Amino acid sequence: MITLYDIPSDIKGIAWSPNTWKTRIALQIKGLQFETVWVEYPDIADLCKKIGAAPSGTRADGSPSYTLPVIHDSSTNTVVSESGLIARYLDKTYPNTPILISPETDALHGAFQEVSRFIILPHMSQLMVPPSHAHLHPPSQAYFRRTREISFGQKIEEISPPGAIREALLEKLQGGFTKLAEWLELDGREKLFFTGNRVSHADLSIAGWLIWIKLILGADSPEWLAVKTWNGGRWGRFMEHFEQYEKVW
Amino acid sequence: MITLYDIPSDIKGIAWSPNTWKTRIALQIKGLQFETVWVEYPDIADLCKKIGAAPSGTRADGSPSYTLPVIHDSSTNTVVSESGLIARYLDKTYPNTPILISPETDALHGAFQEVSRFIILPHMSQLMVPPSHAHLHPPSQAYFRRTREISFGQKIEEISPPGAIREALLEKLQGGFTKLAEWLELDGREKLFFTGNRVSHADLSIAGWLIWIKLILGADSPEWLAVKTWNGGRWGRFMEHFEQYEKVW
Repeated sequence: MITLYDIPSDIKGIAWSPNTWKTRIALQIKGLQFETVWVEYPDIADLCKKIGAAPSGTRADGSPSYTLPVIHDSSTNTVVSESGLIARYLDKTYPNTPILISPETDALHGAFQEVSRFIILPHMSQLMVPPSHAHLHPPSQAYFRRTREISFGQKIEEISPPGAIREALLEKLQGGFTKLAEWLELDGREKLFFTGNRVSHADLSIAGWLIWIKLILGADSPEWLAVKTWNGGRWGRFMEHFEQYEKVW
Repeated sequence: MITLYDIPSDIKGIAWSPNTWKTRIALQIKGLQFETVWVEYPDIADLCKKIGAAPSGTRADGSPSYTLPVIHDSSTNTVVSESGLIARYLDKTYPNTPILISPETDALHGAFQEVSRFIILPHMSQLMVPPSHAHLHPPSQAYFRRTREISFGQKIEEISPPGAIREALLEKLQGGFTKLAEWLELDGREKLFFTGNRVSHADLSIAGWLIWIKLILGADSPEWLAVKTWNGGRWGRFMEHFEQYEKVW
């Protein structure tokens, strides 16, 4: 049995974190049984140290940064952090399940993850941090406010208020998604998925970002309705494929 | 017969442009016969319009940007611009030659090309524009000075003078190459090439950048000697593989 550590919200029956969604969908695609253990933000670092989960990165001050997703696989007694490394672990440990990062695309997946830090994540975070904050439980909410207000240098309420700032952000985000769409058509085929007919980890990253918008802002929010029209409706079609995985254990 | 349009320099017997090198090596890997036609910078746009080569992009002012490499393939009477699109054309037209951008990696190659604009090219250009300028023929030199001084907002001589500025730049470039090295080891194997055992277009991009340093600054320059030591000597070993292609027609 695999345990997936995830971050709760006050919305009944859904997960919301884009990064844990990547792993939640990966486990379903692979048909691997798992259960969710919900962890509030202030408890993540202690949990990771206790179960031996590596930090996923380093903070600006040089201290280790502990984040979810983390999985514990009881069949191998292995703990793995970070959705890309988890995908690689699952591919290696369960080679008869659908492969998410093929050897041929492994290093290029590194490039995909890095470029998202420039063209997607800054706009996505700015757009989604305030509404995500609103749905956290009190202990996580206080932690999230403190850490995000430091990283943005602004009050949560000032990061992306409704109106012109939010509209400009959505336009920047559209620019990022338009680049993804252009790459998907470089070979003259209008591929839905990055490596062709099957889903790879790059697609799971995109699905995680879009699920974040769809579930936190709502399927009838102006933002989600706009995203579905971008690039000839590509992202609406793309997310229809992932509806089958929008369930939570 | 394929014609490769390239930019001359005053160094006898070498090509120097990182972008045309990508195609020059691609043609050799594929074993395709080609001849070089040398074109000075001020003549590139007129040539492209005359032979029907598409612009490779758009300038800040909205006008089309014509760049090399461009190839003309007399066997299909086709003209193609931009090294990535040329690689895709050659893969499709000559399917029995080594494939540079496999269908599985096509969209991810788009991500690789985009991320290089953030982590490699700004530092690389700043480092290499002044020494490249020094080796151009007079008409190209005047054109190169005018266009690069506009884009950098500095005199050629101020862009990367020897000393602290150049050393800091080389350190930033090393940071970019360290990211490439990390991606190449994400799967626990120390791969030399991006997609595994054979060379892909991503590798040709790296080879083009490194050949630029090696040939314009010289194989005994402090910069090239430093690059060869980065990441456990990885890039020195990498470029040994490409020495066989360092010839010019």
